[in-house]
Order: sequence, then C-alpha cells, then structure tokens
Amino acid sequence: MRTGVWLVGGRGSVAVTAVVGALALRAGLAEPTGCVTELPALRGADLPALADLVFGGHDVATIPLLKKAEELAEAGVLPARLVAALTEELGTVEAELRPAPTGTPQAAAVEAIGADLARFRERHALERVVVVNISSTEPVPDPHPGHASLAALDRALAEGNPLPPSAAYAYAAFAAGCPYVDFTPSTGARLPALAELAERAGVPYAGHDGKTGETLVKSVLAPMFAMRHLQVRSWSGVNLLGGGDGANLAEPAANAAKTASKQRVLGETLGYVPQGNTRIEYLDDLGDFKTAWDLVTFSGFLGTPMRMEFTWHGCDSSLAAPLVLDLARLTAAAHRAGRTGPLTELAFFFKDPLGDTPHGLAEQWATLCAFARGLAPCTAGPDDPPAATTGVRAPAQGLPGGAQASGGTEQTAEVRHAVPR
Amino acid sequence: MRTGVWLVGGRGSVAVTAVVGALALRAGLAEPTGCVTELPALRGADLPALADLVFGGHDVATIPLLKKAEELAEAGVLPARLVAALTEELGTVEAELRPAPTGTPQAAAVEAIGADLARFRERHALERVVVVNISSTEPVPDPHPGHASLAALDRALAEGNPLPPSAAYAYAAFAAGCPYVDFTPSTGARLPALAELAERAGVPYAGHDGKTGETLVKSVLAPMFAMRHLQVRSWSGVNLLGGGDGANLAEPAANAAKTASKQRVLGETLGYVPQGNTRIEYLDDLGDFKTAWDLVTFSGFLGTPMRMEFTWHGCDSSLAAPLVLDLARLTAAAHRAGRTGPLTELAFFFKDPLGDTPHGLAEQWATLCAFARGLAPCTAGPDDPPAATTGVRAPAQGLPGGAQASGGTEQTAEVRHAVPR
Amino acid sequence: MRTGVWLVGGRGSVAVTAVVGALALRAGLAEPTGCVTELPALRGADLPALADLVFGGHDVATIPLLKKAEELAEAGVLPARLVAALTEELGTVEAELRPAPTGTPQAAAVEAIGADLARFRERHALERVVVVNISSTEPVPDPHPGHASLAALDRALAEGNPLPPSAAYAYAAFAAGCPYVDFTPSTGARLPALAELAERAGVPYAGHDGKTGETLVKSVLAPMFAMRHLQVRSWSGVNLLGGGDGANLAEPAANAAKTASKQRVLGETLGYVPQGNTRIEYLDDLGDFKTAWDLVTFSGFLGTPMRMEFTWHGCDSSLAAPLVLDLARLTAAAHRAGRTGPLTELAFFFKDPLGDTPHGLAEQWATLCAFARGLAPCTAGPDDPPAATTGVRAPAQGLPGGAQASGGTEQTAEVRHAVPR
Amino acid sequence: MRTGVWLVGGRGSVAVTAVVGALALRAGLAEPTGCVTELPALRGADLPALADLVFGGHDVATIPLLKKAEELAEAGVLPARLVAALTEELGTVEAELRPAPTGTPQAAAVEAIGADLARFRERHALERVVVVNISSTEPVPDPHPGHASLAALDRALAEGNPLPPSAAYAYAAFAAGCPYVDFTPSTGARLPALAELAERAGVPYAGHDGKTGETLVKSVLAPMFAMRHLQVRSWSGVNLLGGGDGANLAEPAANAAKTASKQRVLGETLGYVPQGNTRIEYLDDLGDFKTAWDLVTFSGFLGTPMRMEFTWHGCDSSLAAPLVLDLARLTAAAHRAGRTGPLTELAFFFKDPLGDTPHGLAEQWATLCAFARGLAPCTAGPDDPPAATTGVRAPAQGLPGGAQASGGTEQTAEVRHAVPR
Ligand SMILES: NC(=O)c1ccc[n+]([C@@H]2O[C@H](COP(=O)([O-])OP(=O)(O)OC[C@H]3O[C@@H](n4cnc5c(N)ncnc54)[C@H](O)[C@@H]3O)[C@@H](O)[C@H]2O)c1
Ligand SMILES: NC(=O)c1ccc[n+]([C@@H]2O[C@H](COP(=O)([O-])OP(=O)(O)OC[C@H]3O[C@@H](n4cnc5c(N)ncnc54)[C@H](O)[C@@H]3O)[C@@H](O)[C@H]2O)c1
Ligand SMILES: NC(=O)c1ccc[n+]([C@@H]2O[C@H](COP(=O)([O-])OP(=O)(O)OC[C@H]3O[C@@H](n4cnc5c(N)ncnc54)[C@H](O)[C@@H]3O)[C@@H](O)[C@H]2O)c1
Ligand SMILES: NC(=O)c1ccc[n+]([C@@H]2O[C@H](COP(=O)([O-])OP(=O)(O)OC[C@H]3O[C@@H](n4cnc5c(N)ncnc54)[C@H](O)[C@@H]3O)[C@@H](O)[C@H]2O)c1
Ligand code: NA
Ligand code: NA
Repeated sequence: MRTGVWLVGGRGSVAVTAVVGALALRAGLAEPTGCVTELPALRGADLPALADLVFGGHDVATIPLLKKAEELAEAGVLPARLVAALTEELGTVEAELRPAPTGTPQAAAVEAIGADLARFRERHALERVVVVNISSTEPVPDPHPGHASLAALDRALAEGNPLPPSAAYAYAAFAAGCPYVDFTPSTGARLPALAELAERAGVPYAGHDGKTGETLVKSVLAPMFAMRHLQVRSWSGVNLLGGGDGANLAEPAANAAKTASKQRVLGETLGYVPQGNTRIEYLDDLGDFKTAWDLVTFSGFLGTPMRMEFTWHGCDSSLAAPLVLDLARLTAAAHRAGRTGPLTELAFFFKDPLGDTPHGLAEQWATLCAFARGLAPCTAGPDDPPAATTGVRAPAQGLPGGAQASGGTEQTAEVRHAVPR
Repeated sequence: MRTGVWLVGGRGSVAVTAVVGALALRAGLAEPTGCVTELPALRGADLPALADLVFGGHDVATIPLLKKAEELAEAGVLPARLVAALTEELGTVEAELRPAPTGTPQAAAVEAIGADLARFRERHALERVVVVNISSTEPVPDPHPGHASLAALDRALAEGNPLPPSAAYAYAAFAAGCPYVDFTPSTGARLPALAELAERAGVPYAGHDGKTGETLVKSVLAPMFAMRHLQVRSWSGVNLLGGGDGANLAEPAANAAKTASKQRVLGETLGYVPQGNTRIEYLDDLGDFKTAWDLVTFSGFLGTPMRMEFTWHGCDSSLAAPLVLDLARLTAAAHRAGRTGPLTELAFFFKDPLGDTPHGLAEQWATLCAFARGLAPCTAGPDDPPAATTGVRAPAQGLPGGAQASGGTEQTAEVRHAVPR
Repeated sequence: MRTGVWLVGGRGSVAVTAVVGALALRAGLAEPTGCVTELPALRGADLPALADLVFGGHDVATIPLLKKAEELAEAGVLPARLVAALTEELGTVEAELRPAPTGTPQAAAVEAIGADLARFRERHALERVVVVNISSTEPVPDPHPGHASLAALDRALAEGNPLPPSAAYAYAAFAAGCPYVDFTPSTGARLPALAELAERAGVPYAGHDGKTGETLVKSVLAPMFAMRHLQVRSWSGVNLLGGGDGANLAEPAANAAKTASKQRVLGETLGYVPQGNTRIEYLDDLGDFKTAWDLVTFSGFLGTPMRMEFTWHGCDSSLAAPLVLDLARLTAAAHRAGRTGPLTELAFFFKDPLGDTPHGLAEQWATLCAFARGLAPCTAGPDDPPAATTGVRAPAQGLPGGAQASGGTEQTAEVRHAVPR
Repeated sequence: MRTGVWLVGGRGSVAVTAVVGALALRAGLAEPTGCVTELPALRGADLPALADLVFGGHDVATIPLLKKAEELAEAGVLPARLVAALTEELGTVEAELRPAPTGTPQAAAVEAIGADLARFRERHALERVVVVNISSTEPVPDPHPGHASLAALDRALAEGNPLPPSAAYAYAAFAAGCPYVDFTPSTGARLPALAELAERAGVPYAGHDGKTGETLVKSVLAPMFAMRHLQVRSWSGVNLLGGGDGANLAEPAANAAKTASKQRVLGETLGYVPQGNTRIEYLDDLGDFKTAWDLVTFSGFLGTPMRMEFTWHGCDSSLAAPLVLDLARLTAAAHRAGRTGPLTELAFFFKDPLGDTPHGLAEQWATLCAFARGLAPCTAGPDDPPAATTGVRAPAQGLPGGAQASGGTEQTAEVRHAVPR
C-alpha cells in the first residue's frame, strides 16, 4: 500500500518535522511517541505502514529541506543527531518538492498543481496520494459567488482568482482523485462547490486545524466541568507563540480565523458559552515553542466561586507532526475503503472539526477507535482506553505497525479526473 | 421512597454543607450546581428525590449544626442568606444527630451504632438508610487477625477494639441492613471480614475517598496524554489545604493514606508510573479552600521536552457535598434494585475506587450512565455527554428530579439483622 | 491641620473604599494595613492625621454612597460589618458630594468646580483641600493649541471645551489654590498650560496612575534582573479585570492610555525594552478583583534560557484606597511646607510618575522616606527598610499618627485665585 | 593581580560552568551576562581581572573536566560550541585538579589540603588564592566540643575527625592564609574555632549558600509587601530540582540544612514570619534545571484577602557560576585591602548571609556598591541602580573590566601560615 503524502507548505516547520520523524522511524532511530496510530488501540487498523509513505510537496519558500531541518534542530525541535543521520534520505524528499503554482486565471494554477500530483503518483507508482495542507494560515477570504456551486466556481476560475490557496489545493486534489486533509484553519475544502467536487470525485477529506495545545487541554477540562455539573463562569487565555506560524498569526486577519476555531470547544462541550476570550500574541523569543495560559473561573454547590489556571509550554511542530502522519494514514485507508466526503470521525485531531460531532476528547477518541476498527481487515481490539489495552507503553520498534503492510487486498485507486473546464 | 442519609461526621464541613444544600434545594432556594445526579443524562434514573432524603448522623464533636453552618458561611463556603433562611430546618436535623458511640469491647459500640440506625429508620418510617462516612481521615490501621474473616472479627470485637472507627461504622451499617458509602480514604468496608458481612446482609457499598480536586483534574489530563501517545516523564504536585480536614491530614499517618490514594490514577490511566510525588501541606490561612499546584513534564515526537502546570483553587466542601448527596441517592437505588457488594460502577466519584475499574473520568462517566440507566424504571436517555443532551444548562428547578419520586414500585426494604454476636 | 480631601469620582469603587477605610480607622474599627504613611519609617513625618481628613467630591453618577459601600461589601472588597457600623458617618460624607459640573464653554464648568471647592473649604474651616482625581480613565485626548500656554488655554476655555475632564479639575484646583493628585492615567495636570498655572498658584501636584498590581510587582522584579545582570528577553502579560474600571478600560482608547503607562517601568529599570506586551481585558466575572499573569523569559550566564511567570490576584480598590489616603496626606503636607510644581518624590505610588525619576521600587522608597523626613517637624528616623525599623508589625491603633496633628505651626493657606477669564 | 581560585568540588556542575564561562569570557567568546561585577555600577572597583584568575581545585569525583563540560552542554547548561572551542584551556585547568584529601586523624587531611594550596600558589606565582567551597551540601553536623575554640579544635583534629569537610577546607584555607568563600549551606567557617583562626591568620571569609532562585525572588517580593504595608499571611513553596545537587538535597539531613537557609529572608524583611514552608524535592527529569512554585497569600486594606503565585524555571548552575566568579574577585580584593573576618557586605549573594545584615535585595545591592567603591583605587561611580548608570546594556567586550588590572599598586600578599599543630 505505497502511499504518497503531498505536503502543501512542505518546507515549513510542521512539514519538515513530520518528514524527519517518518524517516527516523523508518530507520529505527526513534520511537513513535506522539503517533496516535501507533497506540495499541489503533494498531489493528489496516493503515499504510509508515515505511510505505512517500513524501513530496509544494511551497512558496525555497529554503532547502536540510537547512530547515538543521534550523529546527538548533531550535530544540529535532535532535541534531537525527538530522545528521538522515541527510541522504532528506535529499530524496528534497527532490520531490515543487514551487507552488500561482497565476491568473486560477484555473491554470489549479491544473499545474494537479499535474504535479499526477506526476508524483506515477513516478513512484503510488496507490494513492493524500494531500495535506500544512501551509501558512490564510486570512478569512471574502465571500465570492463562485464558492456556491461547482459550475459557478469553474466559470470563476477560468476568469480570475476566486479561491484562497488552500481551496485551490483542495480543488486540484479532488480533481486528481486525491483525498485532502486540512491541518490549518484556512478555508480548504469548506466551500459548497468543493463538497460537490469531492462527491463527484469520490474522495474523502478531513479538517480543520490540528488540535495540539491549549485547545487539546480544553477538550478534556471542559467536559470535566460538565460531567461534574460545575458551572464555568469564564474562560480566558493568552497564547504566546514564536516561529513562522506565530509571526503569521499575529496578522489580525489570520488571528481572527485561528481564534474562532479555538472557541468552539467550550460551547459545544459545556452547552453554553462562558465569558472570556483567547488571544494569540507573537513573541519571537519563544522560537518554535508556545506558552499558553488559561484562567477558568467556575461555581460549585450553592454558587461557591472557584478557579483553575494552567500554563502549557509546548513545541507546536513536535505536537503537530505525528498527527500529520496519523491523518495521512487514516485518510488514505478511508479512501481505500471507499469513504467519500467529510471524515467527521477524525474530529479527535482537530480544533474545528468538520460536521456536527462531539468536542469532548474522550468521545472523539471512542469515535476514532470505532472508525479505525471499521477500516481493519478483521475486527480487532475494542476501543479500550489507551493504557488499559497496553498495560505498559509499547516497546520501541524500528517501524511499528509495519507488519500490516504486507497484505494484498488493497483496492485499486480509482482516479477520477474532474479537471477544471 | 423516603430515604435516610446517616452522616458519620455529621457536624463536619462536608456534612453540614451537604445538609444545608439539600435543604436549600428542597426549599427552592438554590440550583443543583455540582449535583451529578441532576444532570439531564442521569435524570432518567429511578433515584430517591432530594426532597425524600432525611438526615441524621454521628459525630464526636458537639458544635451545634447551626453554628457550624454559620462558620461555613463566614468562611465563604455557604451563602449566609441560605443559613439564615434555613434555621428552622437545620434544627430538625440537629435533633437527629447523636454522639459517636465508643468504648471497649468494640462489640458494644457497634451495637449502639446499629441501635441508633434502627431507631432513626423507625422514627421516620424510612424505606432504607444509607450510611455515609464523611468523618476525619484515620491513620492506616495496623493489621489485625480479626480483619480476615467474619468469624475471627466477631471474636475479636467481643474482646477488644480490632477495628478503626470507619470499619466499625461499616460493620454496624451492614449488620443493620444498611448500604454504606465511604467518602474518606479510611479503611471503611475494605476488609475481608466486612465483605463477608455485606454479602451475608445483602447490601451494597461504595468508596473510597471522594474525588474533588487535583485528582479529578488528573483523571482527565492523564488520559489526554495517553490518547495522544505523549510520554509523561514526571508529575509532581503540592496540595495546600486549611480547614479541619487539612489539619488532620497534616498528621503524617493520615497524610500517607491520602497521598497513596491520589497516586493511583496516573499508573492506571497511563500504563506506567511517571516520576514525582504529591505532597499535602496544612496551611491554616486557606480556611476551607485548597490550592493545588501540579507540574507535568512530558515528551513529544522525537523526544522533544515540554511541560504543563496547573493551579487549582477549590472549596473542598463545596465540591464534595453534592457528591455526598449523589452517592446517597445512587446507593439507595442500587440497594432497592437488589445490588450487593462493592458498587464498582461508582468509580466516577472516587480517588481510590473499589475494584479493578478504569480511572479515566470519561470512561467512568460512561460506566456511571449505564449503571444509572440500569436502575431506571424505563430505559431512559443515552449516555450522551452532559452538554450534548442538554444543549443549554437545565433551568433551575426548586427540586429537580422530584417528579420521579411518586412511583409506587419500590420493593420493600428487607432489613437483615446480622448483629454482632 | 484639618485637611479636605476632594474626590473626583467620589462615588467610584476606589473613592468609596478610601472613605469607608478612613472612617473605620478613625473609629478604631480597623488596622491601617496598606497605608504606607502608617509604617514606622514614615511615622515621623508631619502629616495631617487621618482623623483630620474631611471628605467631599464630585461625580457624574448618582448612586448613594451607602449603596455603593454595600455593593462593595457584597463583592468582598469591604467587610459588611464596617459598612453597617459606619452608616451615619457615610451620611455625613454623602452630604458633601456634588454633581460634576459640565457644559460649554468649559470656563463655566471650571468656575463651578472652583466654587464647590471654595464652599467646601469654608464650610469646614479647612486649612487646605487636596483634590484627588480618582474618576474613570479618559481616552487620550486630541492635541489642542490651548494646551500649550495658560494664555492660550484661557482663551480656548472661554469659547469651547479644550480640556478633558481630568484637566479641567486640575485647572479648577490650581485656580482655587488646591494641590492636585492624579491617581488615574488621564491627562490631569500634564499640560504646559497647567504647569504654568500651578506655578503661578504656588501649589504642588502629583501623579500619574496608582501603582497597585502587576506594575508594582514589575517594579521590584525588573530591578532584580538588572542587579543580577540577567538579560530579560521578553516580558508579556495579560490583565483580566472586572468592575467599573475594567469595563471602561476595555474601551480601546482608555486601554491604550493604561497600557502605555504600564510599560515604562521595564525600559527605565532595565535600560532596554524587552519584547512583549501587556494586555488589559475586561472579565465581568472577576468583579472588583483582577488577575494578572506575566511571563518573563531571560538569559543567564553563557546565554542559558530561563523563565519566570507569576499570577497576581488582587483587589484593586483595596490596594488603591489606602494609597489615596497616603497621597492626600503627603501632598497636603508638601503644600504646607511650601512645595510647588510636580512632586517627583512620590514616584513610589505611581505607574507613570512625573519627572525623570527612578522606577525601581526600592529607590523610590528611599526617595519617599527622605521626602517625608524633609516634611518632619524634627529630623526623625532613617530610611530604614520597613521591617528593620519595626521588628514586628505595629500594633493596631485607633488612629495611628494622630499625635502629630496637634502642632500649631501650619502656615495659612494662601488661596490664589487664578480664575479663567 | 594574578589570583588563584581554588574550587572545592571542582568537578561539579557549578564549578565547571564557572570555569568554562571564565575561559570563554577571557577568549572573547561570550558576554558577561550574570556577572554582577561586570555591571557598570561595580566596574570602578579594583578587582582582579577575569583574565587574571587561575583555577584549580579538589574533588572526590574523578570525572574528567572535559567530559563534565560536555555533559553540561548536552543538558543545555552550556553551549556546546564553547566547550568545543575551549578543549585545550580546559586541559590546563584539569591539570590543576587534585583528589580531595581525606583520612584520620583529620589533621593530616587538613595539612594535605594546605599543601595543595601552597603548591598551587607557588606553581603559578599567585598573589593570593581564594578557596571557594562549591561541593555537595553536607548534612548538619553533630555538635562537637572541638568546635568551640581553636585550641580545642587542634586537639580534636590530632585525634579524630571533628570537622565536616567544608570546615576542614576552611581550616586549611585560613591556615594557609587564604580567604574562603562558602557558596553552600554547609558549615564552612561558621564555627567559633574557625573564626578565631581566620582572625589570627588575618583573612576574610564569605558565605553562605548562593542565592540563585526562589530565595532571590523572595528577597525582592517580601520587601515589596513590607514597603506597601500589606500583610503577608502565608508563603509556601516547593522546589523541584534534578541534577547532582538535587539528588543530594533529597537526603533529609541536607534538605533540612537548605530549607532553613531559605526561610530566613521572610522573617528578616517582613518583621514577622508568615505561615508556610518551602519544600525541596528531587525530580531527576529536570536535569540541571529547577522549577520552584510559591504561593503568597496576603491582606490589603480592611483585611481583603489576595494572593500571588510564581513559578521560577531556572538553570541553577548558570545562575550560580557567574556569582562564584564575582565572589572570588570581590573576596580577593577585600583580602588585598586588608579586610579580615566575615565579609557581611556580600550578603547580596547569599541566602543565609553572615552577620546581622539586611535581607532585602535592594539594600544589599546598595551595601555591595558601597563596599566595592571602598575597594576602588579612586572613588568611582555612585551606587546608582544598574540600568540608570548604563542606559543600555554594556556592549560585549572580550574581557570586560580588564583595563583596571594593569595598575601596579597591589600590596604584597602577606601569607600567614597558621598550620595545624
Ligand atoms: N504546529 C501546530 O501545532 C499547528 C496546529 C494547528 C495548525 N497548524 C497550522 O499548520 C500550518 C503550518 O504551521 P508551521 O508552524 O509549519 O508554519 P511555517 O510558517 O513554519 O510553515 C508554513 C509553510 O507554508 C508555506 N506556504 C505559505 N503559503 C504557501 C502557499 N500558498 N503554498 C504552499 N506553501 C505555502 C510557507 O512558505 C512555509 O514554508 C499553519 O497554518 C498553522 O496554523 C499548526
Ligand atoms: N472535602 C473534600 O473534598 C473531600 C474529598 C475527599 C475526602 N474527603 C474526606 O471527607 C472527610 C471529611 O472532611 P471535612 O472537610 O468535612 O472534615 P471535618 O474535619 O470538617 O469533619 C470531620 C468530622 O468528623 C468528625 N469525626 C471525627 N472522628 C469521628 C468519629 N470517630 N465518629 C464520628 N465523627 C467523627 C469530626 O468531629 C468532624 O466533625 C475527611 O476524611 C476528608 O478526607 C473530603
Ligand atoms: N483600583 C486601582 O488599583 C487603580 C490603580 C490605578 C488607577 N486607578 C484608576 O482609578 C480610577 C477609578 O477606579 P475605580 O475602580 O474606582 O473606577 P469606578 O468606575 O468604580 O469609579 C470611577 C468613578 O468616576 C466617576 N466619573 C466618571 N467620569 C467622571 C467625571 N467626569 N467627573 C466626576 N466623576 C466621574 C464615575 O461615575 C465613577 O463613579 C480609574 O481611572 C482607574 O484607572 C485605579
Ligand atoms: N547551583 C546553585 O544555584 C546553587 C545555589 C546555592 C548553593 N549551591 C550549592 O553549590 C554546591 C554545588 O552544586 P552543584 O550543582 O555544582 O552540585 P554537584 O553535585 O554537581 O557538584 C558537587 C561536587 O562536589 C564534589 N564533592 C562532594 N564532596 C566533596 C568533598 N568532600 N570534597 C571535594 N569535593 C566534593 C562532588 O564530587 C561534585 O563533583 C551544592 O552544595 C549546592 O547546594 C548551588
Ligand atoms: Na500559575
Ligand atoms: Na503558573
């Protein structure tokens, strides 16, 4: 089940961390910490092996992959020894990165993206290619009549630039028969016209906005308050973040997109929206790390006021990268299993999940386990809690999960071309 | 379904908060914030109504209930206006409080406890009486040969004082056919001899150690790390607490009992025990509030070190009191439904739950919902997450859940007397 | 030395807390916690006794003083028992509150303010009246040519409304020969025209923006880093605050004024400005309390990165009110001692002090002690650290410092009228 | 003014960080961040130049200096590039490290220490050698009659082992005419017999226990509360620390010594001792870093309760090492200037300073500046706050302060031999 993973934003921090990590796991140089699909509870699923992933991507930047990897090592995101050991393998991936096609009318750029995807698939005889958007967060785009239907969109693409880049990549992916994952809060596939195209192309998609820090914590703390019938009165926070993503999010428009997707979890898990806001601030000194602080005020029995605060100091790329691998594998398997349209069962991974799904992490986990079991060749383990199944953390394996890759039951990828007219 | 709630430690902070709260709810003066059994997801269960609870209890202290309630109001635990409005009702409960029987041989004290329970039941024509231990935490007792079997225990009781008080109350409860709940980390019913007696008497019991603060938070955060395959390297904390319970826990022996019960959740949810300890310190200035601080260090993808810390500032009595009411109602219903022995399905409420149950809060919640449904007269709602069922917080009702109390299907309480010989 | 204290914003939280506290101290019902002028190191200064302060003020609001005091008690700012005990005394102060004069041209409003001050002084045979602005923070005003000189200002006042209210009060105060203290970040006396008027009237003034929370902490932590030659890389924070002041500061313009005055301390004590911002957010649920969180990242020897964070949970009115009393006493004494113009020695009390003064709290303390000694009838104690002089906290006294009030050397208040023409 | 710095514990983390740093500064490879004596306010003092320091030392461990330095680089304490660049220079220092003399009777060990010191001085033609104890913290020793007077001590040394190692080093230092600095909480020179010896030998000494983390913060925050007349009700904390020192301090006896020295600052700066304790816990995962958390509860005006908490995440070796260099330079200069006995003016550097000195950092700073000025060849700058003098951080200089070293006015070191008899 050789599977392509096409990274939009392939020279960015998350993308390069994902690539270095996948190469390190394949080489037996690292443990799969942070990889959800390597937990015992999900091991039974029939996913492409990590060793079967082949990487390529687009980027507007030109920094060499190796240089970016070295910068990440310098910043404490990656161990320098891994980068040194994988120089050659990184060169192979470098050869698969392409400049991001642009230009007017957008139909041409979209076609160029599709052509890059098709050549990548052919060059490596891939069963399928999953496109993962992990590029810079875009501002919320202006509404455009072309967004409403595929027919209108095709007309608009022929004349101008109706789509933000994330949506143009989604269009090209669907048109090339590729599943699409949006790890960012950008528009991506969230337009009626693109839903129509995905349906017609018979491909699934997933999103939005990887859940890696403060929102992850919220998705377990908010249900805790709800299960205990404690009334959350306010929830306020600040996210201080450095790195390229931080600088970009400091732009008010991108900040707005991100902040909105951070707020959903409270309303959805509590059943009401407490007072307070979450702010994002750029702080260059934090580099690739983020410090978030949240204050929660709540009432107990007879109204007694109480409070909780937490500080989260995480490395966003290190938290996000393994999820990119998880999503690529799960989405590839869903495609093979014939799933089309929004993969709402992957809400576990996202701040702003597609569809009307639960926002509590534990329920999302149960949903994910059931989904993965549905993809399994034979009905495997139950959706036990992670540790209950394992007892103890799984021992390091050079390439965990590699065993499943040998089966020959994969259905042939049916590539439906729905190129822009 | 008039149900007695016999509070061991009935003049303590938690007990008095529970009593004032129950009276306030009955009088329509407060909302059931903090009462888990008043959440929509549990409303369908066939529980005794809050209005049908009748309170009594034992205590070694003599402080008048009203005075204690006023002290709690002064300390910010209770609204002063509630205490003022409920003076008369508190007087009624005051009349049901008895000095704690003591003396040697312990058989006599146990018999005296049983007699108090029997008279309470008769005086109020109660269907059943649930005994809830909410008295001061005891030191871990020395092992005693009488703990091993009921026969050995009965011999030992006739001669000396083989049982710590919490276990003596459990003995008396079982002997009087009463279910028993231990909200403290003390021994309670956790002795082979007492399991035998409970079985013989056909009564259920629940425990141990109400989960109200730092451990509650741990029971959602630790699963979060596990579900994300993040490796928790250390988890250290300090609990600063004032109040009567704090002073008592500062005694090294009691502290040891409490600290041990706080540690279980990590090993059970993570599958391994990270470095670090939890300390309990007495700090008079905090009064009835507690401040806990925890530091968690963990590794992500490729070993990147990260950290999280949280501060919890809670009012323990305000968090514990509604759970005492929940437990009394659920245990009474379980008794009526014919359940005997340890109620492992109530793990949701405890730091150190009976039996080999999951320690993640979300799974405990699902278990609790299923358990409550099993008690329901007709199959009610699903074990949806709290907010999903509700949409919005349930509006305040004078006595939520009171409606179910009118049914006439209650089985007659079979009071089995297994008095100490 | 009977001294009037005229509170602009006399029905606000800080003002009412100051009034209740002064009355409580006078009645022997409270200790002078928080009153800097009651520390042993400052006791020798020849200040008006707390018992000799007479209160009056202006406000645009009409809420009765007693009602406001009761609300503050309900909110936990004041002990309810004090408000109950001081009802009569509060009535006496109520009688001295006047609606804030407004209208166009502003000369009339200014004259009306002056007339209220003069009548207050006469009614109570006061030696002098100190005007303290403790009203809502104003937006930063637009520049106006009338601000540049007294002559230009007088022309402008005759025609329109060139001054923000805080400056109009300062004008009226100076014109009436009254010293003026600005406890807010508003314009107040900070205009060339007003400096001219103060000089001509021979009165001193003090400001700006009482230093009560996060900035107070910064003013000791930043010098700590400087004295240890540690390099502060970033200092970021968020201030969550409720109450009337919080709602007002949430207005972007007022927020800007306040934020700027919070930033000065870092540049001035470190010698450079680290990265980072301080944000102010309104959070109704916090009531009269404020929670501030700050993150400081810094480098040690050979560049090792380290960090510190703090959370401050304070009651602003309770922190500010005793300083209002301190400032009124010190400014009155300075006036009596013949001081005119900006009292830069009072920087200890302010976020954004007048003049080019040190911003480290310890140096400001030494300056304050020297200033107070200069006001003393005879040379008193040295500028010892607070505790070194005391050993142990001074015992509560009904009216600390009252003894000095008996001297008869006060110079007659020379009231110079420089009314707007 | 070539000056020897003899490091007891010369292979430990602090010692090796100090050595690497001094070599890096000398080579122009680093800035003097963290070096207090390189602040403008202290630059005028007539101190030995960093370039004139020559290092040697004793240790019971045998780990090569270079290996320890590489471990510190791996742990993030030192930049790896510095260690690589200084391999040769580290070899030179390695040649000056000696095994710690031990054995019974202790007189022989003491003599052997003295001989090592004398040979070091001669080998490098040093004007003087400052002995700095930076070895593992010892348990509080049992009282011994030999501690009371020099005569009794000399008798006891001839027969047994009356002294803990830190005191044996102090004895040997004094006997060899060397000043002695104790950076640890161990006994060191704090015995009447040793004070007698120091007096007789005419040498100064300094101590105890470098102030680098939580206590440093306390020494500015506690005076802040005092200056504002706020009543500190409780101050509680926990110190989580890894590294060799952490493991050692986890021993209850060493922990007790350390905890006591952390508590003094509160009583001395506040004038009373608030409730609460500071705990030290070993947490291997923190490596050479320490995380301390403190909670302060305090009352404001009219008793309003408030709170502050802080988390300090520091690298102890990085904070301590530059202070070791500062202390060696200042103590050497004091020796040259003829000072004998306890150098109480160096309290700025210590948790548990010698003598009855102020504990507020700002006062200690003023005292230090005056002390340094007293050592200056000509009266230099005032004791201005650090930043006020500088305006902006001093630019990096290859060897800051080196200029003063050229003078020829140094008095000849008078080496008094008071060898153990
Ligand atoms: N790291 C996390 O925890 C996390 C979580 C959720 C979402 N995200 C999102 O992931 C994205 C990537 O984050 P990052 O930290 O790697 O950021 P980054 O700035 O390091 O990388 C983004 C990359 O996208 C490239 N890019 C920009 N526009 C492009 C375009 N039109 N076509 C192709 N490439 C383009 C940039 O050149 C850059 O190399 C961001 O949108 C971020 O919001 C990250
Ligand atoms: N509050 C919480 O969040 C929480 C959580 C878990 C467990 N608990 C446990 O609940 C118990 C009560 O806590 P609290 O804060 O109310 O303490 P408390 O000290 O206010 O009350 C305990 C009461 O028990 C009484 N008592 C002591 N020995 C007795 C005996 N032998 N027989 C009868 N009464 C006796 C005391 O006189 C006192 O009135 C403690 O054991 C505590 O550890 C509390
Ligand atoms: N509390 C603190 O710690 C602190 C610290 C520094 C500065 N301050 C400043 O003190 C001021 C008062 O704070 P507060 O919490 O009492 O606010 P508040 O809103 O409770 O009171 C302000 C009062 O000013 C009155 N007012 C508004 N405009 C007026 C006008 N033109 N003339 C007369 N009165 C007017 C309002 O009606 C109100 O009664 C604010 O400017 C605040 O920024 C407070
Ligand atoms: N790092 C700080 O911020 C700080 C602050 C205050 C005090 N201190 C004190 O400094 C000391 C050193 O700290 P560290 O982190 O470098 O510890 P460390 O454990 O890394 O080093 C201590 C060294 O002392 C050596 N040693 C032990 N006994 C000895 C003896 N009898 N003679 C000679 N050498 C001996 C050990 O072998 C080791 O090499 C400790 O006592 C610590 O408490 C450190
Ligand atoms: Na905190
Ligand atoms: Na914190």
